[in-house]
Amino acid sequence: MAVIPMWKCDRDGSMFSDKKAAEEHDKMLELAANITMLLEQTYDNIDEKIAEDIGLLFAKHKETLAKAIKGKPELVLEIGKESAADQSADEDSSE
Amino acid sequence: MAVIPMWKCDRDGSMFSDKKAAEEHDKMLELAANITMLLEQTYDNIDEKIAEDIGLLFAKHKETLAKAIKGKPELVLEIGKESAADQSADEDSSE
Repeated sequence: MAVIPMWKCDRDGSMFSDKKAAEEHDKMLELAANITMLLEQTYDNIDEKIAEDIGLLFAKHKETLAKAIKGKPELVLEIGKESAADQSADEDSSE
Repeated sequence: MAVIPMWKCDRDGSMFSDKKAAEEHDKMLELAANITMLLEQTYDNIDEKIAEDIGLLFAKHKETLAKAIKGKPELVLEIGKESAADQSADEDSSE
Protein backbone atom coordinates (compact mmCIF):
# COMPACT_ATOMS: atom_id res chain seq x y z
CA MET A 1 0.00 0.00 0.00
CA ALA A 2 1.19 3.61 -0.59
CA VAL A 3 2.18 6.04 2.14
CA ILE A 4 0.57 9.47 1.86
CA PRO A 5 2.17 12.72 3.08
CA MET A 6 -0.01 14.54 5.61
CA TRP A 7 0.41 17.88 7.38
CA LYS A 8 -0.45 18.26 11.05
CA CYS A 9 -1.25 21.64 12.57
CA ASP A 10 0.51 21.49 15.93
CA ARG A 11 -1.72 24.17 17.47
CA ASP A 12 -4.76 21.87 17.56
CA GLY A 13 -3.55 18.58 16.05
CA SER A 14 -5.81 18.79 13.00
CA MET A 15 -4.52 16.95 9.95
CA PHE A 16 -4.42 18.09 6.31
CA SER A 17 -3.44 16.32 3.10
CA ASP A 18 -2.70 19.75 1.59
CA LYS A 19 0.20 21.82 3.00
CA LYS A 20 -1.35 25.17 2.01
CA ALA A 21 -4.60 24.34 3.80
CA ALA A 22 -2.63 23.35 6.90
CA GLU A 23 -0.70 26.66 6.82
CA GLU A 24 -3.92 28.62 6.33
CA HIS A 25 -5.48 26.85 9.32
CA ASP A 26 -2.40 27.51 11.45
CA LYS A 27 -2.44 31.22 10.55
CA MET A 28 -6.14 31.40 11.42
CA LEU A 29 -5.47 29.85 14.85
CA GLU A 30 -2.52 32.22 15.39
CA LEU A 31 -4.80 35.20 14.63
CA ALA A 32 -7.41 33.79 17.05
CA ALA A 33 -4.81 33.27 19.79
CA ASN A 34 -3.43 36.79 19.34
CA ILE A 35 -6.89 38.38 19.49
CA THR A 36 -7.58 36.41 22.68
CA MET A 37 -4.23 37.53 24.17
CA LEU A 38 -4.97 41.16 23.22
CA LEU A 39 -8.39 41.02 24.93
CA GLU A 40 -6.98 39.41 28.08
CA GLN A 41 -4.15 41.97 28.23
CA THR A 42 -6.54 44.88 27.69
CA TYR A 43 -9.50 43.84 29.86
CA ASP A 44 -8.51 42.35 33.24
CA ASN A 45 -12.03 41.16 34.06
CA ILE A 46 -12.90 39.58 30.71
CA ASP A 47 -14.17 35.99 30.93
CA GLU A 48 -11.41 33.69 29.61
CA LYS A 49 -13.79 31.47 27.62
CA ILE A 50 -15.43 34.52 25.98
CA ALA A 51 -12.01 35.95 25.09
CA GLU A 52 -11.13 32.63 23.44
CA ASP A 53 -14.46 32.39 21.60
CA ILE A 54 -14.18 35.98 20.33
CA GLY A 55 -10.69 35.24 18.99
CA LEU A 56 -11.97 32.22 17.09
CA LEU A 57 -15.11 34.02 15.93
CA PHE A 58 -13.14 36.84 14.31
CA ALA A 59 -10.39 34.57 12.99
CA LYS A 60 -12.83 32.12 11.39
CA HIS A 61 -14.74 34.97 9.74
CA LYS A 62 -11.76 37.18 8.99
CA GLU A 63 -12.68 37.73 5.32
CA THR A 64 -16.06 39.21 6.28
CA LEU A 65 -14.41 41.25 9.04
CA ALA A 66 -11.84 42.59 6.55
CA LYS A 67 -14.63 43.74 4.18
CA ALA A 68 -16.45 45.38 7.09
CA ILE A 69 -13.26 47.23 8.06
CA LYS A 70 -12.62 48.28 4.47
CA GLY A 71 -15.86 50.27 4.28
CA LYS A 72 -18.95 48.13 4.86
CA PRO A 73 -19.43 48.12 8.66
CA GLU A 74 -22.87 46.55 8.26
CA LEU A 75 -21.17 43.30 7.20
CA VAL A 76 -20.04 42.72 10.80
CA LEU A 77 -23.55 41.51 11.60
CA GLU A 78 -23.21 38.89 8.84
CA ILE A 79 -20.56 37.24 11.00
CA GLY A 80 -23.26 36.44 13.55
CA LYS A 81 -25.38 34.74 10.88
CA GLU A 82 -22.38 32.87 9.41
CA SER A 83 -21.37 31.66 12.86
CA ALA A 84 -24.92 30.52 13.71
CA ALA A 85 -24.96 28.61 10.40
CA ASP A 86 -21.60 27.01 11.27
CA GLN A 87 -22.96 25.89 14.65
CA SER A 88 -26.11 24.30 13.24
CA ALA A 89 -23.98 22.56 10.58
CA ASP A 90 -21.73 21.20 13.38
CA GLU A 91 -24.81 19.98 15.31
CA ASP A 92 -26.22 18.25 12.19
CA SER A 93 -22.95 16.44 11.47
CA SER A 94 -22.62 15.26 15.09
CA GLU A 95 -26.16 13.77 15.19
CA MET B 1 -17.21 87.94 11.16
CA ALA B 2 -17.43 84.93 8.82
CA VAL B 3 -19.55 81.84 9.42
CA ILE B 4 -17.72 78.56 8.99
CA PRO B 5 -19.34 75.30 7.84
CA MET B 6 -18.90 72.52 10.39
CA TRP B 7 -19.90 68.86 10.27
CA LYS B 8 -21.36 67.16 13.37
CA CYS B 9 -21.24 63.40 13.80
CA ASP B 10 -24.64 62.63 15.29
CA ARG B 11 -23.48 59.34 16.84
CA ASP B 12 -21.36 61.10 19.46
CA GLY B 13 -21.81 64.82 18.74
CA SER B 14 -18.19 65.40 17.77
CA MET B 15 -17.62 68.28 15.38
CA PHE B 16 -15.40 68.45 12.29
CA SER B 17 -14.48 71.29 9.94
CA ASP B 18 -13.81 68.68 7.25
CA LYS B 19 -16.70 66.61 5.88
CA LYS B 20 -14.53 63.63 4.93
CA ALA B 21 -13.07 63.41 8.46
CA ALA B 22 -16.60 63.54 9.90
CA GLU B 23 -17.70 60.70 7.60
CA GLU B 24 -14.63 58.64 8.47
CA HIS B 25 -15.35 59.13 12.19
CA ASP B 26 -19.00 58.14 11.69
CA LYS B 27 -18.01 54.98 9.82
CA MET B 28 -15.56 54.09 12.59
CA LEU B 29 -18.31 54.47 15.23
CA GLU B 30 -20.71 52.41 13.09
CA LEU B 31 -18.10 49.62 12.89
CA ALA B 32 -17.60 49.83 16.67
CA ALA B 33 -21.37 49.69 17.33
CA ASN B 34 -21.80 46.71 14.99
CA ILE B 35 -18.94 44.77 16.62
CA THR B 36 -20.50 45.48 20.02
CA MET B 37 -23.92 44.31 18.77
CA LEU B 38 -22.35 41.14 17.30
CA LEU B 39 -20.65 40.32 20.61
CA GLU B 40 -23.82 40.94 22.63
CA GLN B 41 -25.88 38.80 20.22
CA THR B 42 -23.31 35.99 20.26
CA TYR B 43 -22.37 35.91 23.95
CA ASP B 44 -25.32 36.28 26.35
CA ASN B 45 -23.12 36.73 29.43
CA ILE B 46 -20.63 39.23 28.00
CA ASP B 47 -20.15 42.37 30.11
CA GLU B 48 -21.84 45.27 28.29
CA LYS B 49 -19.01 47.74 28.97
CA ILE B 50 -16.39 45.25 27.72
CA ALA B 51 -18.42 44.60 24.56
CA GLU B 52 -18.54 48.36 23.96
CA ASP B 53 -14.82 48.81 24.64
CA ILE B 54 -13.87 45.91 22.35
CA GLY B 55 -15.98 47.44 19.55
CA LEU B 56 -14.17 50.77 19.93
CA LEU B 57 -10.76 49.11 20.32
CA PHE B 58 -11.05 47.22 17.03
CA ALA B 59 -12.74 50.11 15.18
CA LYS B 60 -10.12 52.66 16.29
CA HIS B 61 -7.30 50.32 15.25
CA LYS B 62 -8.98 48.85 12.19
CA GLU B 63 -6.02 49.47 9.88
CA THR B 64 -3.71 47.37 12.06
CA LEU B 65 -6.43 44.73 12.44
CA ALA B 66 -6.87 44.61 8.65
CA LYS B 67 -3.11 44.01 8.17
CA ALA B 68 -3.18 41.28 10.82
CA ILE B 69 -6.09 39.59 9.04
CA LYS B 70 -4.36 39.88 5.66
CA GLY B 71 -1.44 37.70 6.77
CA LYS B 72 0.44 39.19 9.75
CA PRO B 73 -1.41 37.84 12.81
CA GLU B 74 1.40 39.05 15.09
CA LEU B 75 0.28 42.64 14.39
CA VAL B 76 -2.81 42.11 16.57
CA LEU B 77 -0.62 42.58 19.62
CA GLU B 78 0.46 45.98 18.28
CA ILE B 79 -3.13 47.11 18.85
CA GLY B 80 -2.57 46.71 22.58
CA LYS B 81 0.50 48.96 22.43
CA GLU B 82 -1.23 51.53 20.23
CA SER B 83 -4.23 51.60 22.56
CA ALA B 84 -2.03 52.01 25.65
CA ALA B 85 -0.25 54.89 23.89
CA ASP B 86 -3.63 56.48 23.07
CA GLN B 87 -4.65 56.25 26.71
CA SER B 88 -1.50 57.84 28.08
CA ALA B 89 -1.83 60.59 25.45
CA ASP B 90 -5.42 61.18 26.64
CA GLU B 91 -4.25 61.32 30.26
CA ASP B 92 -1.46 63.82 29.40
CA SER B 93 -3.85 66.11 27.54
CA SER B 94 -6.39 66.03 30.38
CA GLU B 95 -3.81 67.00 33.06
